[in-house]
Amino acid sequence: MIEDKDIKFTPLNQFSEFELIHEWTKNFKVYHSNLLKGIGDDCAVQELSDNQVLLTSTDLLIESVHFDLSYCPPVHLGYKAAMVNFSDIVAMNALPTAITVSIACSNYHSFELVQQIYLGIQIACDELQVDLIGGDTSSTRKEMVISITVNGVREKDKIVYREGAKHSDLICVTGDLGAAYAGLLILEREKKVFIENPNIQPDLNDFDYVIERQLRPRARYDIIRFFNERCLKPTSMIDISDGLANEINHLCKASKLGAVLYQDKLFSDYQTQKVSELLNIPLTSFILYGGEDYELLFTISPQYYADISKNKDIKIVGYMTEQFVEPMLFQADETYIPLKPYGYHHFKK
Amino acid sequence: MIEDKDIKFTPLNQFSEFELIHEWTKNFKVYHSNLLKGIGDDCAVQELSDNQVLLTSTDLLIESVHFDLSYCPPVHLGYKAAMVNFSDIVAMNALPTAITVSIACSNYHSFELVQQIYLGIQIACDELQVDLIGGDTSSTRKEMVISITVNGVREKDKIVYREGAKHSDLICVTGDLGAAYAGLLILEREKKVFIENPNIQPDLNDFDYVIERQLRPRARYDIIRFFNERCLKPTSMIDISDGLANEINHLCKASKLGAVLYQDKLFSDYQTQKVSELLNIPLTSFILYGGEDYELLFTISPQYYADISKNKDIKIVGYMTEQFVEPMLFQADETYIPLKPYGYHHFKK
Repeated sequence: MIEDKDIKFTPLNQFSEFELIHEWTKNFKVYHSNLLKGIGDDCAVQELSDNQVLLTSTDLLIESVHFDLSYCPPVHLGYKAAMVNFSDIVAMNALPTAITVSIACSNYHSFELVQQIYLGIQIACDELQVDLIGGDTSSTRKEMVISITVNGVREKDKIVYREGAKHSDLICVTGDLGAAYAGLLILEREKKVFIENPNIQPDLNDFDYVIERQLRPRARYDIIRFFNERCLKPTSMIDISDGLANEINHLCKASKLGAVLYQDKLFSDYQTQKVSELLNIPLTSFILYGGEDYELLFTISPQYYADISKNKDIKIVGYMTEQFVEPMLFQADETYIPLKPYGYHHFKK
Repeated sequence: MIEDKDIKFTPLNQFSEFELIHEWTKNFKVYHSNLLKGIGDDCAVQELSDNQVLLTSTDLLIESVHFDLSYCPPVHLGYKAAMVNFSDIVAMNALPTAITVSIACSNYHSFELVQQIYLGIQIACDELQVDLIGGDTSSTRKEMVISITVNGVREKDKIVYREGAKHSDLICVTGDLGAAYAGLLILEREKKVFIENPNIQPDLNDFDYVIERQLRPRARYDIIRFFNERCLKPTSMIDISDGLANEINHLCKASKLGAVLYQDKLFSDYQTQKVSELLNIPLTSFILYGGEDYELLFTISPQYYADISKNKDIKIVGYMTEQFVEPMLFQADETYIPLKPYGYHHFKK
């Protein structure tokens, strides 16, 4: 009705998510000198008085794009929606304090369904002692929308960014990798079977661990507590939401260094290996490119080797190298291959 | 697929928005003693060290529910989306500092359309010197989703809540009322004409002011600056997003007092009056129940009568009464009628 006929119409799928964010936000000015980190890390960092900083992270989840209520129990959806945001605060070496939750739903959704989602959020909040401080409730035409913003406060000198890794730092990974993606593939396979024959209830017992990793990931706040207790501070850190290969590329780029990862040090669970065999997909794809594990990838000075080794849930998987080059994978056959980033593009074909 | 067959399915339209929020969030615990105000005011208030508080407000906007791109120019949509959030911070007697913006769009939306939305957000941020600190970019099946979270920091003793009004306090309103709703009705009328005959371009010149009030509302941060300069502090305050009748009910409920408003003091613009005549809708409906004006409603001690009177954009429209009763409107015919709240329910029929 009121429109400029001369305006161009460029489809969004001609851009990557990174390009879109850059293009759309590049003209914004910074007015407050207390903004230590804006777009480009796991959280925004605003300096408060008294050597404290405020960390903020936000996520927007859309039904049928980010979650599928046909196989995701709503209580787990709520738990995961909160946890993945908590994980962003954790990835800065801090703990979340407060959360806002906005949910828009339609008459396709029942009161009880949304109640279960809030219950999941509450369970996550109880686990990390996070306060629900506000939000918004609204309606959509069809698909549900969940928007969560989390904040946390920490001493400025304890914050760990994506940048800051030093040459020869140890590269460490928590937990095991690829399980969440393995769980997703199993759930999608079972959904297909179910659609073809709704009387068959899926038997998921053999894959309980990987399915739990997909549906109910846990932010590694236990690792932050371990760092605190031992007075350890990583030099750089990120949570593994888009796969190890992507995240190590982020760290290298931010720290302007290279990295070598040893393939034989990268750890996956037995069930992930089973899914790899079952679906005939190389295990390396799960480990390097499987998203949503929400484990931590961090670098730390080699002087802390002994301390780090005491935590069985932390594996040393490589080291940072001097020049800013693509991170490399040292394979079992003693050859190196570059670790290309490969992410999920919302729009780009 | 994985579901509990025994779960009840209660349609959402059996509840008001307030009931839904209450039911869904009532079991959340408060873990941090620094949470001065959670759900139930314009912003959440978290105490920081050093007598400062952090204010947070969030909004979720869905295309076809909250905005209509057929008559809302995207640059205005972005401006408004930011401004209505800024208004929540302003309503606590503070100024916003930082914003996160999450946008989900589909291939129905072009790169340039979203760019215009960000431009509108940027114009609003430039006006109030707000930093864009983060966000999320995602995809939807069809309708666009915009989620905005704003924060601001202020001295604890400067914060004004919905509660706090005292018996005999003056009730004040900024600007004029009902214009945004008048603008909406004109735009919706013109949209109908346009759908019937797309060759007719609407002539909106006679209604430029009310349309601007609908499409491009401005948070009343000028009033906060006026309070600051004169060392004035309201006893209670709220922004008028859902109509004056609703907001005065909120203030009365929060402050546990009654109120009397004088009908002849409630001010509307000439164009609003013209729309009222044109569409044969009583002007009182616009003034009392027209939403989205984003003017401020506040109470202040009568000792500041002279100071307040110096600002031509502030009108004294009534006074607070002793007992907690429904607020009353003193009409031109010298009779009183109760001011019933009447809001927009997303789900309730």
